[in-house]
Amino acid sequence: MQDLIPEIPALNDTVLLEALRLRIDNKTKPLGSLGQLEDLMLRLGLILGSQTPELQAPQMLVFAGDHGLAARGVSAYPCDVTWQMVENFLAGGAAVSVLARQHGLALTVVDAGVRHEFEPRANLAQCKIAPGTQDCLEQAAMSADQCAQAIRSGRELLASKPGNAVLLGEMGIGNTSSAALLLARLTRAPIEQCTGRGTGLDDAGVQRKIEVLRQVLARHPDAQTPLQALAAFGGFEIAMMVGSVLQAALERRVIVVDGFIASSAVLVASMLQPAVLERCVFAHQSDESGHRLMLQTLQAKPLLQLGLRLGEGSGAALAWPLLESSCRILREMASFASAGVSEASS
Amino acid sequence: MQDLIPEIPALNDTVLLEALRLRIDNKTKPLGSLGQLEDLMLRLGLILGSQTPELQAPQMLVFAGDHGLAARGVSAYPCDVTWQMVENFLAGGAAVSVLARQHGLALTVVDAGVRHEFEPRANLAQCKIAPGTQDCLEQAAMSADQCAQAIRSGRELLASKPGNAVLLGEMGIGNTSSAALLLARLTRAPIEQCTGRGTGLDDAGVQRKIEVLRQVLARHPDAQTPLQALAAFGGFEIAMMVGSVLQAALERRVIVVDGFIASSAVLVASMLQPAVLERCVFAHQSDESGHRLMLQTLQAKPLLQLGLRLGEGSGAALAWPLLESSCRILREMASFASAGVSEASS
Repeated sequence: MQDLIPEIPALNDTVLLEALRLRIDNKTKPLGSLGQLEDLMLRLGLILGSQTPELQAPQMLVFAGDHGLAARGVSAYPCDVTWQMVENFLAGGAAVSVLARQHGLALTVVDAGVRHEFEPRANLAQCKIAPGTQDCLEQAAMSADQCAQAIRSGRELLASKPGNAVLLGEMGIGNTSSAALLLARLTRAPIEQCTGRGTGLDDAGVQRKIEVLRQVLARHPDAQTPLQALAAFGGFEIAMMVGSVLQAALERRVIVVDGFIASSAVLVASMLQPAVLERCVFAHQSDESGHRLMLQTLQAKPLLQLGLRLGEGSGAALAWPLLESSCRILREMASFASAGVSEASS
Repeated sequence: MQDLIPEIPALNDTVLLEALRLRIDNKTKPLGSLGQLEDLMLRLGLILGSQTPELQAPQMLVFAGDHGLAARGVSAYPCDVTWQMVENFLAGGAAVSVLARQHGLALTVVDAGVRHEFEPRANLAQCKIAPGTQDCLEQAAMSADQCAQAIRSGRELLASKPGNAVLLGEMGIGNTSSAALLLARLTRAPIEQCTGRGTGLDDAGVQRKIEVLRQVLARHPDAQTPLQALAAFGGFEIAMMVGSVLQAALERRVIVVDGFIASSAVLVASMLQPAVLERCVFAHQSDESGHRLMLQTLQAKPLLQLGLRLGEGSGAALAWPLLESSCRILREMASFASAGVSEASS
């Protein structure tokens, strides 16, 4: 277990923190006038251990997996969309493909457990645990062994990538159900507060989804720890993300978290190792109901609130320039002294 | 007057609007899942008259001016900071300088009326109407002639620049007072709802500022039209921005509006020619109290809410990549048909 889940130390470099504060306050601007961006500067400086942090070789990892529960009609889209979208990512036609090109993010699509055989491709990491999870209304989505294997695989994949920042996205028809189940079980929140429209269910569809998820929770009363819940509710893409979050935190990389499903992986990882949260930047608050509660639980203040609910890492990619801006401001912006600008009179 | 204020026609190309909607809805994503970004795509497509819009040679214009009223202690900073910050912009050390470099925005600093003589520089547009406005507690900040001259100068400057998008920022110690006065007079809102901390007044400072502004309003009971109010309350940088907004709208350029002061210029321009608003993208909601009311008045939904209150165009620059993303998604993202992805079942 210690081998599987690394110990993540807290970032408590108070000397660096004070130096960063001073550096920010001496920039040629009214105190605090860059708002939330100043918090981001502190966070990035602390994670990367520098007053002049520089983001290097950012990796966009999009984890894909299928879900046995999808056969129960919890999604507006058919299961085949998972592999079809993987092909779309690889062909460069998806939203995240476009945004990764725009921002110079190296895009890797990860087959964590898609019900489809892919031809090998550059940018496709073949890490399939199984062709989709089991139907968690009948049995655990995955075995404890498969869960451990997925976490290990996520750690290894992350460790194999260069750079000091990673953006986490996902694709998997049915995976808002897994995220909702994890949120409900791990925070004791009522399932109806955790469940949303996903890719676009209507009101009746959401009600059906809530009923199915309620039955799933009742089917797995013993799945109480983070890892038990992860195995019970899936999916493989979430489990691999948990591993990548842990490994990235261990390596002190900046972790840019996309939406509801990526946040559910962070929820699991943070319950295993709370200090992972210090390495996370939450890109946006999704329009998927449940994400607000998830972010509150994680005490996270997202950068964007654009009503996004696409997943894929698209929100993380959209927020990326704000991280880059924060680092550049720390590095390049003048101080009152260096620019010869008068300070406030008070 | 017709010579000064151009007529701005409404953008009512319903055929293009429908084509854009269809194009967005056929992209490989759940309907509406890019949230506010989809509204932005429609707006950019309509402004630029294309289903595949491309932003070209974006111009960041930072208008600077001094304010006679600043001598009344309405700001936390001394007046000299205006010219000192102009030097900082030109030397590349200010926040907007850093952000303009990051995003490839051509930065022009405009001396609309700074109380200082600048050496000529590339990127400095010398358009000084006068070395600062008059103290509007005693008389109008500028004459009607000066106001017209500033608007004309803003139009000419804009017309001289290449590209199809402009980002508007400003610098001027005391100019949150002008913006608050314009908001209060032109919307009939109580002055205390329009007045904020500016660069960092404390509670007592804000109360003093409110009292001064109340007296200024009482001093100019006849300044009721947008142009009369603009002349009465200033400043030159706001008046030049009004001209640039009108000219950019006339040329169907995308106008990216920064914070409270830039929005006050849009408020004036939109009361002269309402259709300018169709060409505007509001970058962020500033932490300056009053901006929320201003945005409501303009029926604007800003892209970012990061608690910024720096001005300079910094918020516009931070939002810029979202405009670029929107255009790229329209141009480059695959459709369900082209990518061979199944559509929703319902």
